[in-house]
Amino acid sequence: MSKSLKAIRQEIDNINDSILEMLNKRTELIKEITDLKDQNGSEYFDPERETEMMKKVLSKNSGPLYNELIREVFSAIFSTSLKFMGISRQKKLLVSSSSNACFKSINEMFGLGNNEPVIIAGPCAVETPEYLETIAKHLRDKNIRFIRAGAYKPRSSPYDFQGLKENGLKILQDVSKRYGLFSITEVVDTRDVNLVTQYVDILQIGARNMQNFELLKEVGKTNHPVLLKRGISATIQELMLAAEYIALKGNNKIILCERGIRTYETKTRNTLDISSIPIIKKETHLPIVADISHSLGRKDIVNNIAKAVLAAGADGIMVEVHPIPELALSDSKQQLNLSEFDDMLDFIKR
Amino acid sequence: MSKSLKAIRQEIDNINDSILEMLNKRTELIKEITDLKDQNGSEYFDPERETEMMKKVLSKNSGPLYNELIREVFSAIFSTSLKFMGISRQKKLLVSSSSNACFKSINEMFGLGNNEPVIIAGPCAVETPEYLETIAKHLRDKNIRFIRAGAYKPRSSPYDFQGLKENGLKILQDVSKRYGLFSITEVVDTRDVNLVTQYVDILQIGARNMQNFELLKEVGKTNHPVLLKRGISATIQELMLAAEYIALKGNNKIILCERGIRTYETKTRNTLDISSIPIIKKETHLPIVADISHSLGRKDIVNNIAKAVLAAGADGIMVEVHPIPELALSDSKQQLNLSEFDDMLDFIKR
Amino acid sequence: MSKSLKAIRQEIDNINDSILEMLNKRTELIKEITDLKDQNGSEYFDPERETEMMKKVLSKNSGPLYNELIREVFSAIFSTSLKFMGISRQKKLLVSSSSNACFKSINEMFGLGNNEPVIIAGPCAVETPEYLETIAKHLRDKNIRFIRAGAYKPRSSPYDFQGLKENGLKILQDVSKRYGLFSITEVVDTRDVNLVTQYVDILQIGARNMQNFELLKEVGKTNHPVLLKRGISATIQELMLAAEYIALKGNNKIILCERGIRTYETKTRNTLDISSIPIIKKETHLPIVADISHSLGRKDIVNNIAKAVLAAGADGIMVEVHPIPELALSDSKQQLNLSEFDDMLDFIKR
Amino acid sequence: MSKSLKAIRQEIDNINDSILEMLNKRTELIKEITDLKDQNGSEYFDPERETEMMKKVLSKNSGPLYNELIREVFSAIFSTSLKFMGISRQKKLLVSSSSNACFKSINEMFGLGNNEPVIIAGPCAVETPEYLETIAKHLRDKNIRFIRAGAYKPRSSPYDFQGLKENGLKILQDVSKRYGLFSITEVVDTRDVNLVTQYVDILQIGARNMQNFELLKEVGKTNHPVLLKRGISATIQELMLAAEYIALKGNNKIILCERGIRTYETKTRNTLDISSIPIIKKETHLPIVADISHSLGRKDIVNNIAKAVLAAGADGIMVEVHPIPELALSDSKQQLNLSEFDDMLDFIKR
Repeated sequence: MSKSLKAIRQEIDNINDSILEMLNKRTELIKEITDLKDQNGSEYFDPERETEMMKKVLSKNSGPLYNELIREVFSAIFSTSLKFMGISRQKKLLVSSSSNACFKSINEMFGLGNNEPVIIAGPCAVETPEYLETIAKHLRDKNIRFIRAGAYKPRSSPYDFQGLKENGLKILQDVSKRYGLFSITEVVDTRDVNLVTQYVDILQIGARNMQNFELLKEVGKTNHPVLLKRGISATIQELMLAAEYIALKGNNKIILCERGIRTYETKTRNTLDISSIPIIKKETHLPIVADISHSLGRKDIVNNIAKAVLAAGADGIMVEVHPIPELALSDSKQQLNLSEFDDMLDFIKR
Repeated sequence: MSKSLKAIRQEIDNINDSILEMLNKRTELIKEITDLKDQNGSEYFDPERETEMMKKVLSKNSGPLYNELIREVFSAIFSTSLKFMGISRQKKLLVSSSSNACFKSINEMFGLGNNEPVIIAGPCAVETPEYLETIAKHLRDKNIRFIRAGAYKPRSSPYDFQGLKENGLKILQDVSKRYGLFSITEVVDTRDVNLVTQYVDILQIGARNMQNFELLKEVGKTNHPVLLKRGISATIQELMLAAEYIALKGNNKIILCERGIRTYETKTRNTLDISSIPIIKKETHLPIVADISHSLGRKDIVNNIAKAVLAAGADGIMVEVHPIPELALSDSKQQLNLSEFDDMLDFIKR
Repeated sequence: MSKSLKAIRQEIDNINDSILEMLNKRTELIKEITDLKDQNGSEYFDPERETEMMKKVLSKNSGPLYNELIREVFSAIFSTSLKFMGISRQKKLLVSSSSNACFKSINEMFGLGNNEPVIIAGPCAVETPEYLETIAKHLRDKNIRFIRAGAYKPRSSPYDFQGLKENGLKILQDVSKRYGLFSITEVVDTRDVNLVTQYVDILQIGARNMQNFELLKEVGKTNHPVLLKRGISATIQELMLAAEYIALKGNNKIILCERGIRTYETKTRNTLDISSIPIIKKETHLPIVADISHSLGRKDIVNNIAKAVLAAGADGIMVEVHPIPELALSDSKQQLNLSEFDDMLDFIKR
Repeated sequence: MSKSLKAIRQEIDNINDSILEMLNKRTELIKEITDLKDQNGSEYFDPERETEMMKKVLSKNSGPLYNELIREVFSAIFSTSLKFMGISRQKKLLVSSSSNACFKSINEMFGLGNNEPVIIAGPCAVETPEYLETIAKHLRDKNIRFIRAGAYKPRSSPYDFQGLKENGLKILQDVSKRYGLFSITEVVDTRDVNLVTQYVDILQIGARNMQNFELLKEVGKTNHPVLLKRGISATIQELMLAAEYIALKGNNKIILCERGIRTYETKTRNTLDISSIPIIKKETHLPIVADISHSLGRKDIVNNIAKAVLAAGADGIMVEVHPIPELALSDSKQQLNLSEFDDMLDFIKR
């Protein structure tokens, strides 16, 4: 005669209790391993050991539960062990907030002496020395410390203005030196990294190159601060992993940059993902700034968004400024003129 | 003296084995319950029992593993039990391919006597009786059995043409009857469902209303076949769940319709998600057609895409046809004229 | 003998000048019409007249420029005329900032006596009267004036908790009255609008129903303030057009609500489109709030994002609060407990 | 006394007629220029001349129509002139179907002697020589001519398998030579292009590098066929522009590859944009294949989608095949085993 539903359920409850007991015993053992590893400094997470345990378990399984379901349960068990040890697989990243790796704040990178948000401003591209000088002078007068300008311009179309290349670097170096500004420019080819480091203070990796891993490794080998822009459809996790490529080469001066993601919305050029800012601050050690101009592609709402980005916890903002935006060779619609830039500075201080 | 890493790992392996044993014993008990339930026809999945088991387990937990991690492992265990019984939470859906619920094929709904893909054609909206008659005659001459035309047109702007409403229904009924065609039209308000069922053969739920659950329930109460369009940014899973709302009210004549999803690409109006077709065929019992015209928003590639959609396994296609597309009150760019329609018919037969 | 390139170019320049002259003459005439229309109060934009002009022009075209290209040029001409008159096609919307229609601020709707950002808080759903009472008391003690709670819960799955319906409305009314709070709840069916208006102060249209135009029209007929949420993949323009449906029925108490859009990013439930806030403030007369909890689907970054949203210019924020979020019947992960809510209030005031 | 509305409208009609006349005269002159340019072979589209004309017009504008509106009308006029000459700005691309540039079909690139769709198959990555040999033998036995396998694997995480690099190239060369297969592998760094061309027959540019323009230029300088994958969120237009970078360096052996775009849908890894196939066929001279495995990230629907892609007009498909997919070092879920691959071949022939 078959057992009653109630009786079977009681047996299941008992088994649940036994499993509970096993899980806690297992956790005690995990703790012992953790202690051992702490003593000899080895890594907690050992994927090979995990694979080996899984194989052993599956090899002993005689059913009725299928291997594929057994695997699901043990994956959960292994995962909770890792979490118990305080390290999930992804938290193992150097750049993660749970790592001991030491990354510099923007303040520390440049010896700024305060922790106020930084403002990085300048034209989309280096065009004439006169334009750049006008901007640099204006920035210095406003106590802005960072000037941006592209010498290598990756453009969707080969027929669009591609930048002045090394000539542009020279103009940027000359002007930034004379006005005491830190310069930032994009590098787009592994073969150019050495050249660019000779001219500028900060290397920018553009959105299109966020997963150009060879380029990331190459800038990771330099001592220069790197500003890494989020790809146009990269997840926050992928941005962190891209930064990890740089960090693994020994560079601890990494600044992340939110610059909007591609969505269906057309009133802005991209959709600034403001939530990425507190998430990055929480999940990593790295500073993050937001590129307002590239996100928006319009300038009438720059003030509000700049203020919002700082309220969200960003370490700084990046904006495009040009003496005569209408005549700019690229991105003319989104560049602020000098007076609009001053307005923005006032607005975000209010 | 502390144990060696190897010794601890051996102990963990032993515990893994014990857990394995428990999981299989537990599964034996699950089988017994399944048998019992089969005898008395009750439902396998019992969320209350699951909640109760979880509570019991957690109440007995004395650590060191935290409750939140214990919960993760037991969720995995409960989930594998369900899968073992052949019912995952989502497979429990009436519309899923693992359910015993009985849904009609398009052939069965309309007594078509063959299983060839159906073609649903007609203008975006009912405009004049003359236009509709021209189309209906053409369809009949081509042995097409379904005519579509909107009487209620949900439009993003209140200033766009909103349809002829009940007058449109009358024209559609008159013309479709005279030419022996099955008619299909959209219904947009719970209060209109009864009215619309009196005039047409198939009720269409538009993309904007895919999650208008009250409307879904209302058409679920009728005996009319329902063509349910995927929302502009709905997941395939959400489409299935929307169909479930209809099925739960007793309607087993449901036709799903892929009509493109909103992405950043601008060369087409929406991005037709062709993969949804074999996925729906695999994961549900329901027929699925694709609305080529609304996906593409252009007509120069209709032939290729129609053929592709059928190759992917769709039960039919839906296209917009108009005697003089240039004069159509809506969607004029994507409607085929009669000769283009004939070309498409030839093309997909090749 | 053929003319030189230079000579032909000179002729083209001359024609350009003539066209320029014609355009300015045409504009003088447009000004006269504008003045006439101002005198008798008629609408500037007259689509029939435009269609008629286009027909006339095309009928007279004898080439060599094709009709389709002629049409492009004249479309541009007609469009600039409209812009010159200060009304583009879309600016014609009642809700647009260039319209004279009169919409109420949140302050005016509720006689609040100040223009501080409002905070709308409460549980995802009405569950027990005790829970709601606990929250209401807490809100009143914190000088919060708005309580939200769903009685009709549209859920992707028919097997998820669907709300207490009219019983929920009664609980919400009772509690909100006793604590002097304005209540807000979602309405999901045209047939329920009258019922819901009897119980609550503000009607919410949820994201799934943003383009349920019949429902929009129905709430447009009431005198109740309406909070209209942006659809999960609606453009800002579509949100404005949805509001227009309400406005056209005579309701001038409309509050828009940004609540995140669907993207590929998985660290948040949706991607809050912060740029929509200053854009809406600039392009319409309507107040806008942001639903922080539904955007994020997590609560650890609520404080930062709430602050950012207000810095961007929002008229208020909406957050989910529950006495014991772990036990909530829906959205338990994103609801703040009372102490977290207090933290947020402190944080945004800093 | 002011004129009547009717009178003013009559005057506007007259001006419209004059503008029409001017436009047609202007077009006659454009034709003369076209003839001249045909004689001396110069380029029709001359952006400098356009800029110069616009400046002249604006400099003469004395209102009342604002410069910005004048600019809109003349932009439309200039644009129609270009279209009249049969070249829109984008149609100027070498890769566009309206260009005279000569690109090779896949058949011509490899001397295949027929125009049947090609099948490119192989493992995600080169792992052991034995695996690759097993696959190569199988492909040869099935008359497949192309083998793919990655030696450089760009991976989101630096901790994932990165490929065997030059060793992998050697294995691939050895195996493909012995079995008479054309080999294809990804190149990820400008500095590696020369090396890779020595080992394989086709250079692949991966999705992440679609806008790594320096890499595009570098492969453009080789004589090797290049398979260019669409970026994960690239538009079709951007894909065409990326191909243009290659073409401009003189390489006329370019194969485009649709491989799915990033959307919110989670049942597939990416959303295969099937419409891109006929659009590319229509708008360019280039062959296009679809990478089924990477699009889908699952293999149970590969057969249907492969068939659909060919029905849509693709020149071929790319699929991942591995002797023991479960043991693959990457992408194990989406790789077909040999028997599944044979099933697919049968299925697409039906």
